Amino acid sequence: MRLILIGFGVVGQSFVKLLLSHSTDLYNEYGIKPKIVACADHGGITTCNQGLDLERLLNVKKKKNSVKEYNSSIIESTGIMDIVENMDAEVVIELTPTNIINGEPGRSHIITAMKSGKNVITVNKGPLALEFPSLMELAKYNRIAFKFSGTVGGGTPILEFAKRCLNGDRILSFEGILNGTTNYILSKMYEGLNFSEALMDASKRGFAEKDPTLDIDGYDAVAKLVIASNFVMNLKSTMDDVKRIGIREVQATDVYNERKKGNAIKLIAACDGKKLVVGPKPVSTKDPICVNGTLNAITFTCQHSGQQTIIGKGAGGLETASSILRDLIDIRCQMISV
Amino acid sequence: MRLILIGFGVVGQSFVKLLLSHSTDLYNEYGIKPKIVACADHGGITTCNQGLDLERLLNVKKKKNSVKEYNSSIIESTGIMDIVENMDAEVVIELTPTNIINGEPGRSHIITAMKSGKNVITVNKGPLALEFPSLMELAKYNRIAFKFSGTVGGGTPILEFAKRCLNGDRILSFEGILNGTTNYILSKMYEGLNFSEALMDASKRGFAEKDPTLDIDGYDAVAKLVIASNFVMNLKSTMDDVKRIGIREVQATDVYNERKKGNAIKLIAACDGKKLVVGPKPVSTKDPICVNGTLNAITFTCQHSGQQTIIGKGAGGLETASSILRDLIDIRCQMISV
Repeated sequence: MRLILIGFGVVGQSFVKLLLSHSTDLYNEYGIKPKIVACADHGGITTCNQGLDLERLLNVKKKKNSVKEYNSSIIESTGIMDIVENMDAEVVIELTPTNIINGEPGRSHIITAMKSGKNVITVNKGPLALEFPSLMELAKYNRIAFKFSGTVGGGTPILEFAKRCLNGDRILSFEGILNGTTNYILSKMYEGLNFSEALMDASKRGFAEKDPTLDIDGYDAVAKLVIASNFVMNLKSTMDDVKRIGIREVQATDVYNERKKGNAIKLIAACDGKKLVVGPKPVSTKDPICVNGTLNAITFTCQHSGQQTIIGKGAGGLETASSILRDLIDIRCQMISV
Repeated sequence: MRLILIGFGVVGQSFVKLLLSHSTDLYNEYGIKPKIVACADHGGITTCNQGLDLERLLNVKKKKNSVKEYNSSIIESTGIMDIVENMDAEVVIELTPTNIINGEPGRSHIITAMKSGKNVITVNKGPLALEFPSLMELAKYNRIAFKFSGTVGGGTPILEFAKRCLNGDRILSFEGILNGTTNYILSKMYEGLNFSEALMDASKRGFAEKDPTLDIDGYDAVAKLVIASNFVMNLKSTMDDVKRIGIREVQATDVYNERKKGNAIKLIAACDGKKLVVGPKPVSTKDPICVNGTLNAITFTCQHSGQQTIIGKGAGGLETASSILRDLIDIRCQMISV
């Protein structure tokens, strides 16, 4: 299987490490022999028609901070779009950072890959949050597989659970904690810190970005809610359809008062089949969804089998990389069954 | 699809109600048009080669307490084994009560069905807990599908999650609360009752049987642990391989002392890939697995994606019936793909 890897940060490098450590298993269990024929990062692109040497790729990245240094003979003028469009490969793995303003550059990479008949795996939430319906249509039109299980829940297979484990049943609604950073902050506020103290603590531990707006103002949860509700409940929604409130205005006294009542305030993303809402909300500490720290949790309410909750880490390099491997195996299985 | 239904208690009747209310969906979404050609309960058997009238079947059961009264023209001497063996049908659904001594009568029904080339769905834990490896082999040898997703977790798709959602990852161990009755009793003890008071409360609410041995002494959890560990981790274990301690000896003072430390005592079923253990154990109330009431919860520890917890109702007629429908759809999909 020939892969093009776009974006080579923590998740991309973890994915390559997984390929290295599991090459025998992948071949024996799934018949997959993956070759990365092109790899791009912020510094440039490197390609090799026979497949890049993965150990060397990781070393070059570590030592020189860009894959560009892997191979001095690359043609400088070859752009990434040209490679996505014209290089012989079965799967494009898009791992550039999430951009919720216009989805770029991931959006263009994905669209170009689809139009040139390549299957796509991404963990980039931007393009899906902004244009889910049209991207699904484009994938269908071009008859390619489009996989994004790592966009919601990181390594925790939330989307798979909803689609694969509940045949014959119907999901009526779902709600959950889809952002680990805000959950960490709210958990610390439950323990007695105020918002600024809790945010500072999260930053110190690397759980919050320098500019934490995406998390704290609820945009990350909104993006995941849009993806989950489209995928699980066949909505045709985008980010504009979500009513959003972040956690900036949550007061220490509110948290304290709710705590006395047996509740914790959580940033809850909810879909009732029509309306999409993200906002802080008191949740009983006895509710399975009321998890602490950076954990994510989601409860599906089903017509027959009742309520089912999935809890797991919602982020992490290795965890998210495992979702890419899962998607790759899925694509392989689909190729065989066609 | 021609079905033989053996056992027509709460779960069997809920399943028939599901078929009735979802006949259009089942046909449109999955191409399934199920016909029950034989139905047996403690009172006798009724058959109809063109398919029984499901409304009438439910009515007869309700009014006369046995399906035997459905049709006065049945040949009295036809035994159930004869029907399982010789009647034209694709799937035998085995729903007789769990017997953990010798698995009968379910064991014989299942084996006969397999040997006559019929697919089998069961929610009966006995045969699987006692003879999982040999039943799987028999199913394989006869090239039939053998489905039992309702044996663990009732309607909560615990087995499916482990098998379908974690491709490319490896489950290293798992542990969980697999019995709702004991969890209810222990939850009440956490609130301050002693064991006898909590048991009486559970009986009053219909959560405990007249003879609660199977639940309280851990046999039910053992049976589920055996099924899950064989299915998920490819062990070849039976009930004898499990170290078992029930909850009879859990003292109110133990529960109280653990509570002061932030723990609750739970009946935990655990598999580390080799050893199988069921026994009461203190669990931090912050652990996602620490659920209350009759809920079930299971945490899988995976090599890459970390820990993932599934929580849901572990029993209930409609919930468990939904697992049978899920299995039926699965069999249908397998038939198409062959």
